[in-house]
Amino acid sequence: MNTQPRLVEVRKNVLKQNDIVARDLRRRFKDAGVFVVSLVSSPGSGKTAFLEKTLTLLGQRCRVAALVGDLATDNDAVRLAGARVPVKQITTGTLCHLEAAMVQTSIEEEAWDLEELEFLFIENVGNLVCPSSYDLGEDLRLVLLSVAEGEDKPLKYPTIFNTADVAIVTKMDLAEAVEFDLAAANSNIQRVRPGMKVLRVSSKSGSGFDEWLQFLTSARASRLHLAS
Amino acid sequence: MNTQPRLVEVRKNVLKQNDIVARDLRRRFKDAGVFVVSLVSSPGSGKTAFLEKTLTLLGQRCRVAALVGDLATDNDAVRLAGARVPVKQITTGTLCHLEAAMVQTSIEEEAWDLEELEFLFIENVGNLVCPSSYDLGEDLRLVLLSVAEGEDKPLKYPTIFNTADVAIVTKMDLAEAVEFDLAAANSNIQRVRPGMKVLRVSSKSGSGFDEWLQFLTSARASRLHLAS
Repeated sequence: MNTQPRLVEVRKNVLKQNDIVARDLRRRFKDAGVFVVSLVSSPGSGKTAFLEKTLTLLGQRCRVAALVGDLATDNDAVRLAGARVPVKQITTGTLCHLEAAMVQTSIEEEAWDLEELEFLFIENVGNLVCPSSYDLGEDLRLVLLSVAEGEDKPLKYPTIFNTADVAIVTKMDLAEAVEFDLAAANSNIQRVRPGMKVLRVSSKSGSGFDEWLQFLTSARASRLHLAS
Repeated sequence: MNTQPRLVEVRKNVLKQNDIVARDLRRRFKDAGVFVVSLVSSPGSGKTAFLEKTLTLLGQRCRVAALVGDLATDNDAVRLAGARVPVKQITTGTLCHLEAAMVQTSIEEEAWDLEELEFLFIENVGNLVCPSSYDLGEDLRLVLLSVAEGEDKPLKYPTIFNTADVAIVTKMDLAEAVEFDLAAANSNIQRVRPGMKVLRVSSKSGSGFDEWLQFLTSARASRLHLAS
Protein backbone atom coordinates (compact mmCIF):
# COMPACT_ATOMS: atom_id res chain seq x y z
CA MET A 1 0.00 0.00 0.00
CA ASN A 2 1.52 3.29 -1.02
CA THR A 3 0.09 5.13 2.01
CA GLN A 4 2.15 3.00 4.41
CA PRO A 5 5.40 5.05 4.41
CA ARG A 6 3.46 8.25 5.09
CA LEU A 7 1.61 6.56 7.95
CA VAL A 8 4.90 5.46 9.47
CA GLU A 9 6.25 9.00 9.22
CA VAL A 10 3.19 10.56 10.86
CA ARG A 11 3.20 7.87 13.54
CA LYS A 12 6.83 8.74 14.32
CA ASN A 13 5.80 12.35 14.87
CA VAL A 14 2.99 11.31 17.21
CA LEU A 15 5.39 9.12 19.18
CA LYS A 16 7.98 11.91 19.32
CA GLN A 17 5.36 14.33 20.59
CA ASN A 18 4.24 11.74 23.15
CA ASP A 19 7.82 11.30 24.36
CA ILE A 20 8.14 15.04 24.96
CA VAL A 21 4.98 15.10 27.09
CA ALA A 22 6.04 11.91 28.91
CA ARG A 23 9.44 13.41 29.72
CA ASP A 24 7.77 16.46 31.20
CA LEU A 25 5.39 14.28 33.22
CA ARG A 26 8.26 12.16 34.54
CA ARG A 27 10.05 15.27 35.77
CA ARG A 28 6.88 16.52 37.51
CA PHE A 29 6.30 13.13 39.13
CA LYS A 30 9.90 12.99 40.33
CA ASP A 31 9.83 16.54 41.73
CA ALA A 32 6.59 15.78 43.58
CA GLY A 33 7.95 12.52 45.01
CA VAL A 34 5.09 10.44 43.59
CA PHE A 35 5.94 6.94 42.35
CA VAL A 36 3.99 6.14 39.19
CA VAL A 37 3.07 2.60 38.16
CA SER A 38 1.33 1.73 34.88
CA LEU A 39 -0.49 -1.53 34.14
CA VAL A 40 -0.84 -3.14 30.73
CA SER A 41 -2.41 -6.47 29.74
CA SER A 42 -5.01 -8.12 27.52
CA PRO A 43 -8.62 -7.31 28.21
CA GLY A 44 -9.74 -9.60 31.03
CA SER A 45 -6.35 -10.34 32.58
CA GLY A 46 -7.54 -8.95 35.88
CA LYS A 47 -5.95 -5.47 35.86
CA THR A 48 -8.88 -3.86 37.63
CA ALA A 49 -9.21 -6.58 40.29
CA PHE A 50 -5.44 -6.36 40.88
CA LEU A 51 -5.61 -2.58 41.11
CA GLU A 52 -8.64 -2.70 43.40
CA LYS A 53 -6.83 -4.97 45.85
CA THR A 54 -3.64 -2.88 45.61
CA LEU A 55 -5.45 0.42 46.20
CA THR A 56 -7.42 -1.00 49.12
CA LEU A 57 -4.37 -2.47 50.86
CA LEU A 58 -1.97 0.37 50.06
CA GLY A 59 -4.60 3.07 50.68
CA GLN A 60 -4.71 2.11 54.35
CA ARG A 61 -1.23 3.43 54.92
CA CYS A 62 -0.24 5.58 51.93
CA ARG A 63 -1.72 8.37 49.83
CA VAL A 64 -2.60 6.80 46.49
CA ALA A 65 -4.66 7.68 43.41
CA ALA A 66 -5.45 6.01 40.08
CA LEU A 67 -6.21 6.84 36.47
CA VAL A 68 -8.03 4.10 34.57
CA GLY A 69 -8.27 3.98 30.78
CA ASP A 70 -11.01 2.33 28.77
CA LEU A 71 -12.55 2.77 25.33
CA ALA A 72 -16.02 3.18 26.82
CA THR A 73 -17.85 2.96 30.17
CA ASP A 74 -16.76 4.14 33.59
CA ASN A 75 -17.22 0.62 35.03
CA ASP A 76 -13.66 0.46 36.28
CA ALA A 77 -13.83 3.78 38.14
CA VAL A 78 -17.14 2.66 39.70
CA ARG A 79 -15.56 -0.66 40.75
CA LEU A 80 -12.54 1.09 42.17
CA ALA A 81 -14.63 3.60 44.13
CA GLY A 82 -14.86 0.94 46.87
CA ALA A 83 -11.15 1.38 47.51
CA ARG A 84 -11.89 4.92 48.79
CA VAL A 85 -8.98 6.60 47.04
CA PRO A 86 -9.21 9.20 44.24
CA VAL A 87 -9.90 7.49 40.91
CA LYS A 88 -10.42 9.17 37.53
CA GLN A 89 -11.65 7.36 34.41
CA ILE A 90 -10.10 8.24 31.06
CA THR A 91 -12.35 7.26 28.16
CA THR A 92 -10.39 6.93 24.94
CA GLY A 93 -13.26 6.40 22.46
CA THR A 94 -11.79 4.28 19.68
CA LEU A 95 -8.14 4.82 20.64
CA CYS A 96 -6.45 1.57 21.61
CA HIS A 97 -3.97 2.96 24.15
CA LEU A 98 -3.37 5.82 26.58
CA GLU A 99 -1.08 8.68 25.60
CA ALA A 100 0.96 10.90 27.89
CA ALA A 101 -1.17 13.93 27.00
CA MET A 102 -4.29 12.17 28.34
CA VAL A 103 -2.54 11.53 31.64
CA GLN A 104 -1.43 15.15 31.80
CA THR A 105 -4.92 16.48 31.01
CA SER A 106 -6.58 14.20 33.57
CA ILE A 107 -4.25 15.27 36.34
CA GLU A 108 -4.91 18.90 35.51
CA GLU A 109 -8.68 18.43 35.27
CA GLU A 110 -8.80 16.69 38.64
CA ALA A 111 -6.46 19.34 40.08
CA TRP A 112 -4.65 16.57 41.97
CA ASP A 113 -1.79 17.88 44.09
CA LEU A 114 0.94 15.46 43.09
CA GLU A 115 3.02 16.41 46.14
CA GLU A 116 0.24 15.01 48.31
CA LEU A 117 0.50 11.59 46.65
CA GLU A 118 2.95 8.78 47.29
CA PHE A 119 1.71 6.44 44.54
CA LEU A 120 -0.18 7.03 41.31
CA PHE A 121 -1.43 4.05 39.28
CA ILE A 122 -2.32 4.25 35.60
CA GLU A 123 -4.35 1.37 34.16
CA ASN A 124 -3.98 1.27 30.38
CA VAL A 125 -6.61 0.12 27.88
CA GLY A 126 -6.70 -3.69 27.64
CA ASN A 127 -4.37 -4.33 24.71
CA LEU A 128 -1.11 -6.24 24.45
CA VAL A 129 0.13 -4.42 21.37
CA CYS A 130 -0.39 -0.69 21.03
CA PRO A 131 0.33 0.58 24.57
CA SER A 132 3.92 -0.68 24.28
CA SER A 133 4.97 2.32 22.17
CA TYR A 134 3.60 5.04 24.45
CA ASP A 135 5.68 6.24 27.38
CA LEU A 136 3.37 7.65 30.08
CA GLY A 137 6.13 9.02 32.30
CA GLU A 138 5.77 6.07 34.69
CA ASP A 139 8.50 4.76 36.99
CA LEU A 140 7.41 1.16 36.70
CA ARG A 141 5.44 -0.62 33.99
CA LEU A 142 3.71 -3.86 34.91
CA VAL A 143 2.54 -6.36 32.34
CA LEU A 144 -0.18 -8.65 33.68
CA LEU A 145 -0.77 -12.16 32.38
CA SER A 146 -3.54 -14.35 33.73
CA VAL A 147 -3.13 -18.09 34.12
CA ALA A 148 -6.17 -18.51 31.85
CA GLU A 149 -4.40 -16.91 28.87
CA GLY A 150 -1.81 -19.50 27.93
CA GLU A 151 1.88 -19.67 28.68
CA ASP A 152 3.10 -18.53 25.25
CA LYS A 153 1.81 -14.93 25.44
CA PRO A 154 5.33 -13.50 26.07
CA LEU A 155 6.58 -15.09 22.83
CA LYS A 156 3.57 -13.88 20.86
CA TYR A 157 3.62 -10.33 22.24
CA PRO A 158 7.34 -9.79 22.87
CA THR A 159 7.34 -5.98 22.58
CA ILE A 160 4.99 -5.38 25.49
CA PHE A 161 7.06 -7.71 27.68
CA ASN A 162 10.22 -5.96 26.55
CA THR A 163 8.93 -2.51 27.47
CA ALA A 164 7.60 -3.64 30.87
CA ASP A 165 9.66 -3.84 34.08
CA VAL A 166 7.78 -6.50 36.01
CA ALA A 167 5.45 -9.34 34.97
CA ILE A 168 2.52 -10.15 37.26
CA VAL A 169 0.89 -13.56 36.82
CA THR A 170 -2.74 -13.10 37.94
CA LYS A 171 -5.64 -15.41 38.83
CA MET A 172 -3.29 -17.91 40.50
CA ASP A 173 -6.36 -19.38 42.25
CA LEU A 174 -7.38 -20.76 38.83
CA ALA A 175 -3.93 -22.19 38.01
CA GLU A 176 -4.91 -25.76 38.72
CA ALA A 177 -8.29 -25.61 36.96
CA VAL A 178 -6.69 -24.33 33.74
CA GLU A 179 -3.60 -26.56 34.07
CA PHE A 180 -1.31 -23.53 34.02
CA ASP A 181 2.35 -24.42 33.49
CA LEU A 182 4.25 -21.86 35.57
CA ALA A 183 7.68 -23.15 34.57
CA ALA A 184 6.82 -22.76 30.87
CA ALA A 185 5.40 -19.24 31.39
CA ASN A 186 8.48 -18.22 33.37
CA SER A 187 10.81 -19.62 30.78
CA ASN A 188 8.96 -17.80 27.98
CA ILE A 189 9.14 -14.52 29.91
CA GLN A 190 12.88 -15.00 30.48
CA ARG A 191 13.42 -15.80 26.81
CA VAL A 192 11.84 -12.48 25.82
CA ARG A 193 13.27 -10.41 28.66
CA PRO A 194 16.08 -12.17 30.53
CA GLY A 195 16.13 -11.37 34.26
CA MET A 196 12.58 -9.97 34.33
CA LYS A 197 11.03 -10.00 37.78
CA VAL A 198 7.91 -12.17 37.92
CA LEU A 199 5.35 -12.00 40.73
CA ARG A 200 2.34 -14.28 41.18
CA VAL A 201 -0.91 -13.13 42.75
CA SER A 202 -4.53 -13.99 43.25
CA SER A 203 -6.67 -10.89 43.68
CA LYS A 204 -9.44 -13.19 44.88
CA SER A 205 -7.56 -14.92 47.68
CA GLY A 206 -5.05 -12.14 48.25
CA SER A 207 -2.09 -14.47 47.85
CA GLY A 208 1.10 -12.79 46.66
CA PHE A 209 0.03 -9.27 47.66
CA ASP A 210 2.39 -9.07 50.64
CA GLU A 211 5.35 -9.65 48.36
CA TRP A 212 4.00 -7.27 45.71
CA LEU A 213 3.42 -4.42 48.15
CA GLN A 214 6.80 -4.95 49.73
CA PHE A 215 8.42 -4.85 46.30
CA LEU A 216 6.49 -1.68 45.44
CA THR A 217 7.43 0.10 48.67
CA SER A 218 11.09 -0.80 48.19
CA ALA A 219 11.01 0.35 44.57
CA ARG A 220 9.67 3.75 45.63
CA ALA A 221 12.20 4.05 48.46
CA SER A 222 15.13 3.23 46.21
CA ARG A 223 13.88 5.67 43.56
CA LEU A 224 13.64 8.46 46.15
CA HIS A 225 17.06 7.48 47.44
CA LEU A 226 18.54 7.69 43.93
CA ALA A 227 16.80 11.01 43.33
CA SER A 228 18.08 12.67 46.52
CA MET B 1 -1.28 17.29 19.51
CA ASN B 2 -1.09 19.03 16.20
CA THR B 3 -0.12 15.87 14.33
CA GLN B 4 -3.44 14.21 15.20
CA PRO B 5 -5.60 15.52 12.30
CA ARG B 6 -2.95 14.45 9.80
CA LEU B 7 -2.79 11.01 11.39
CA VAL B 8 -6.57 10.66 11.10
CA GLU B 9 -6.43 11.65 7.43
CA VAL B 10 -3.66 9.15 6.62
CA ARG B 11 -5.45 6.43 8.61
CA LYS B 12 -8.58 7.08 6.53
CA ASN B 13 -6.55 6.48 3.38
CA VAL B 14 -5.19 3.20 4.74
CA LEU B 15 -8.70 2.07 5.65
CA LYS B 16 -10.02 3.10 2.26
CA GLN B 17 -7.23 1.16 0.56
CA ASN B 18 -8.00 -1.84 2.81
CA ASP B 19 -11.66 -1.70 1.86
CA ILE B 20 -10.79 -1.86 -1.82
CA VAL B 21 -8.64 -4.98 -1.33
CA ALA B 22 -11.31 -6.53 0.95
CA ARG B 23 -14.01 -5.94 -1.65
CA ASP B 24 -11.90 -7.67 -4.26
CA LEU B 25 -11.22 -10.58 -1.89
CA ARG B 26 -14.92 -10.94 -1.06
CA ARG B 27 -15.74 -11.19 -4.76
CA ARG B 28 -13.05 -13.86 -5.27
CA PHE B 29 -14.28 -15.85 -2.26
CA LYS B 30 -17.86 -15.66 -3.48
CA ASP B 31 -16.97 -16.71 -7.03
CA ALA B 32 -14.98 -19.66 -5.69
CA GLY B 33 -17.80 -20.73 -3.35
CA VAL B 34 -15.59 -20.63 -0.26
CA PHE B 35 -17.18 -19.44 2.98
CA VAL B 36 -14.78 -17.28 4.97
CA VAL B 37 -14.90 -16.92 8.74
CA SER B 38 -12.65 -14.57 10.71
CA LEU B 39 -11.99 -14.78 14.45
CA VAL B 40 -11.19 -11.85 16.74
CA SER B 41 -10.71 -11.75 20.50
CA SER B 42 -8.32 -10.74 23.27
CA PRO B 43 -5.08 -12.63 23.50
CA GLY B 44 -5.78 -15.81 25.43
CA SER B 45 -9.50 -16.11 24.76
CA GLY B 46 -8.99 -19.49 23.20
CA LYS B 47 -9.13 -18.63 19.46
CA THR B 48 -6.52 -21.22 18.55
CA ALA B 49 -8.04 -24.02 20.66
CA PHE B 50 -11.46 -23.21 19.18
CA LEU B 51 -10.03 -23.18 15.67
CA GLU B 52 -8.12 -26.42 16.26
CA LYS B 53 -11.29 -28.20 17.34
CA THR B 54 -13.28 -26.69 14.46
CA LEU B 55 -10.68 -27.64 11.83
CA THR B 56 -10.39 -31.17 13.19
CA LEU B 57 -14.14 -31.81 13.25
CA LEU B 58 -14.98 -29.96 10.04
CA GLY B 59 -11.90 -31.28 8.22
CA GLN B 60 -13.28 -34.82 8.42
CA ARG B 61 -16.05 -34.00 6.00
CA CYS B 62 -15.21 -30.69 4.27
CA ARG B 63 -12.26 -29.06 2.55
CA VAL B 64 -11.01 -26.38 4.93
CA ALA B 65 -7.92 -24.20 5.37
CA ALA B 66 -6.78 -21.53 7.81
CA LEU B 67 -4.67 -18.38 7.99
CA VAL B 68 -3.48 -17.47 11.47
CA GLY B 69 -2.14 -14.03 12.39
CA ASP B 70 0.32 -13.24 15.17
CA LEU B 71 2.90 -10.58 15.91
CA ALA B 72 5.62 -13.18 16.32
CA THR B 73 6.13 -16.97 16.44
CA ASP B 74 4.52 -19.67 14.35
CA ASN B 75 3.23 -21.45 17.49
CA ASP B 76 -0.36 -21.33 16.27
CA ALA B 77 0.41 -22.87 12.89
CA VAL B 78 2.41 -25.59 14.64
CA ARG B 79 -0.48 -26.27 17.05
CA LEU B 80 -2.95 -26.37 14.19
CA ALA B 81 -0.82 -28.75 12.13
CA GLY B 82 -2.43 -31.58 14.12
CA ALA B 83 -5.75 -30.83 12.43
CA ARG B 84 -4.23 -32.01 9.13
CA VAL B 85 -5.64 -29.21 6.99
CA PRO B 86 -3.63 -26.49 5.20
CA VAL B 87 -2.59 -23.78 7.66
CA LYS B 88 -0.48 -20.70 6.93
CA GLN B 89 0.92 -18.38 9.61
CA ILE B 90 0.91 -14.62 8.95
CA THR B 91 3.45 -12.81 11.14
CA THR B 92 2.61 -9.11 11.45
CA GLY B 93 5.73 -7.87 13.29
CA THR B 94 4.54 -4.92 15.37
CA LEU B 95 1.22 -4.48 13.56
CA CYS B 96 -1.74 -5.02 15.87
CA HIS B 97 -4.20 -6.39 13.32
CA LEU B 98 -4.46 -8.21 9.99
CA GLU B 99 -5.16 -6.26 6.82
CA ALA B 100 -6.88 -7.49 3.67
CA ALA B 101 -3.64 -7.19 1.69
CA MET B 102 -1.93 -9.70 4.03
CA VAL B 103 -4.73 -12.18 3.43
CA GLN B 104 -4.45 -11.66 -0.31
CA THR B 105 -0.66 -12.08 -0.31
CA SER B 106 -0.82 -15.24 1.83
CA ILE B 107 -3.35 -16.89 -0.44
CA GLU B 108 -1.19 -16.07 -3.44
CA GLU B 109 2.02 -17.26 -1.79
CA GLU B 110 0.44 -20.56 -0.80
CA ALA B 111 -1.13 -20.84 -4.27
CA TRP B 112 -4.30 -22.18 -2.64
CA ASP B 113 -6.99 -23.01 -5.13
CA LEU B 114 -9.97 -21.28 -3.54
CA GLU B 115 -12.39 -23.30 -5.68
CA GLU B 116 -11.13 -26.42 -3.94
CA LEU B 117 -12.08 -25.05 -0.51
CA GLU B 118 -15.44 -24.98 1.25
CA PHE B 119 -14.32 -23.05 4.33
CA LEU B 120 -11.43 -20.68 5.00
CA PHE B 121 -10.76 -19.47 8.56
CA ILE B 122 -8.75 -16.36 9.36
CA GLU B 123 -7.55 -15.96 12.95
CA ASN B 124 -6.74 -12.33 13.66
CA VAL B 125 -4.06 -11.02 16.05
CA GLY B 126 -5.27 -11.11 19.66
CA ASN B 127 -6.63 -7.60 20.11
CA LEU B 128 -10.12 -6.34 20.93
CA VAL B 129 -9.61 -2.88 19.45
CA CYS B 130 -7.70 -2.48 16.21
CA PRO B 131 -8.98 -5.42 14.12
CA SER B 132 -12.49 -3.95 14.23
CA SER B 133 -11.69 -1.39 11.52
CA TYR B 134 -10.22 -3.80 8.98
CA ASP B 135 -12.53 -5.68 6.65
CA LEU B 136 -10.85 -8.91 5.53
CA GLY B 137 -13.47 -9.86 2.97
CA GLU B 138 -14.93 -12.44 5.36
CA ASP B 139 -18.55 -13.70 5.27
CA LEU B 140 -18.78 -14.11 9.01
CA ARG B 141 -16.84 -12.43 11.80
CA LEU B 142 -16.75 -14.17 15.17
CA VAL B 143 -15.82 -12.38 18.38
CA LEU B 144 -14.67 -14.78 21.08
CA LEU B 145 -15.00 -14.04 24.77
CA SER B 146 -13.76 -16.46 27.41
CA VAL B 147 -15.60 -16.96 30.69
CA ALA B 148 -12.37 -15.98 32.47
CA GLU B 149 -12.43 -12.45 31.02
CA GLY B 150 -15.33 -10.81 32.79
CA GLU B 151 -18.87 -10.21 31.66
CA ASP B 152 -18.46 -6.49 30.88
CA LYS B 153 -16.11 -6.86 27.90
CA PRO B 154 -18.89 -6.07 25.37
CA LEU B 155 -19.56 -2.73 27.08
CA LYS B 156 -15.87 -1.88 27.28
CA TYR B 157 -15.06 -2.89 23.68
CA PRO B 158 -18.34 -2.10 21.90
CA THR B 159 -16.88 -1.54 18.43
CA ILE B 160 -15.51 -5.05 18.04
CA PHE B 161 -18.85 -6.53 19.12
CA ASN B 162 -20.65 -4.21 16.75
CA THR B 163 -18.57 -5.25 13.77
CA ALA B 164 -18.87 -8.98 14.55
CA ASP B 165 -21.74 -11.25 13.48
CA VAL B 166 -21.64 -13.91 16.17
CA ALA B 167 -20.29 -14.01 19.74
CA ILE B 168 -18.71 -17.24 20.95
CA VAL B 169 -18.35 -17.68 24.70
CA THR B 170 -15.35 -19.98 25.18
CA LYS B 171 -13.89 -22.05 28.05
CA MET B 172 -17.38 -22.93 29.32
CA ASP B 173 -15.76 -25.78 31.30
CA LEU B 174 -14.29 -23.08 33.57
CA ALA B 175 -17.57 -21.17 33.99
CA GLU B 176 -18.21 -22.44 37.49
CA ALA B 177 -14.64 -22.02 38.74
CA VAL B 178 -14.59 -18.36 37.67
CA GLU B 179 -18.21 -17.70 38.74
CA PHE B 180 -19.13 -16.62 35.21
CA ASP B 181 -22.49 -14.87 35.01
CA LEU B 182 -23.90 -15.94 31.63
CA ALA B 183 -27.07 -13.86 31.96
CA ALA B 184 -25.01 -10.70 32.59
CA ALA B 185 -22.68 -11.45 29.67
CA ASN B 186 -25.64 -12.10 27.38
CA SER B 187 -27.40 -8.94 28.45
CA ASN B 188 -24.23 -6.87 27.87
CA ILE B 189 -23.81 -8.37 24.40
CA GLN B 190 -27.44 -7.58 23.56
CA ARG B 191 -27.06 -4.01 24.85
CA VAL B 192 -24.18 -3.43 22.45
CA ARG B 193 -25.59 -5.40 19.54
CA PRO B 194 -29.28 -6.25 19.93
CA GLY B 195 -30.19 -9.63 18.47
CA MET B 196 -26.60 -10.87 18.25
CA LYS B 197 -26.32 -14.65 18.09
CA VAL B 198 -24.39 -16.07 21.03
CA LEU B 199 -22.95 -19.59 21.11
CA ARG B 200 -21.25 -21.28 24.07
CA VAL B 201 -18.46 -23.81 23.70
CA SER B 202 -15.74 -25.65 25.53
CA SER B 203 -12.88 -26.58 23.22
CA LYS B 204 -11.64 -28.87 25.98
CA SER B 205 -14.79 -30.93 26.48
CA GLY B 206 -16.18 -30.34 22.98
CA SER B 207 -19.50 -29.08 24.32
CA GLY B 208 -21.34 -26.69 22.00
CA PHE B 209 -19.45 -27.76 18.87
CA ASP B 210 -22.38 -29.65 17.38
CA GLU B 211 -24.48 -26.50 17.44
CA TRP B 212 -21.60 -24.34 16.17
CA LEU B 213 -20.83 -26.62 13.21
CA GLN B 214 -24.51 -26.91 12.35
CA PHE B 215 -24.82 -23.12 12.41
CA LEU B 216 -21.71 -22.78 10.24
CA THR B 217 -22.91 -25.29 7.66
CA SER B 218 -26.32 -23.60 7.45
CA ALA B 219 -24.70 -20.18 7.12
CA ARG B 220 -22.64 -21.39 4.16
CA ALA B 221 -25.65 -23.09 2.54
CA SER B 222 -27.82 -19.99 2.83
CA ARG B 223 -25.01 -17.78 1.47
CA LEU B 224 -24.62 -20.07 -1.53
CA HIS B 225 -28.39 -20.11 -1.93
CA LEU B 226 -28.51 -16.30 -1.89
CA ALA B 227 -25.62 -16.11 -4.33
CA SER B 228 -27.15 -18.45 -6.85
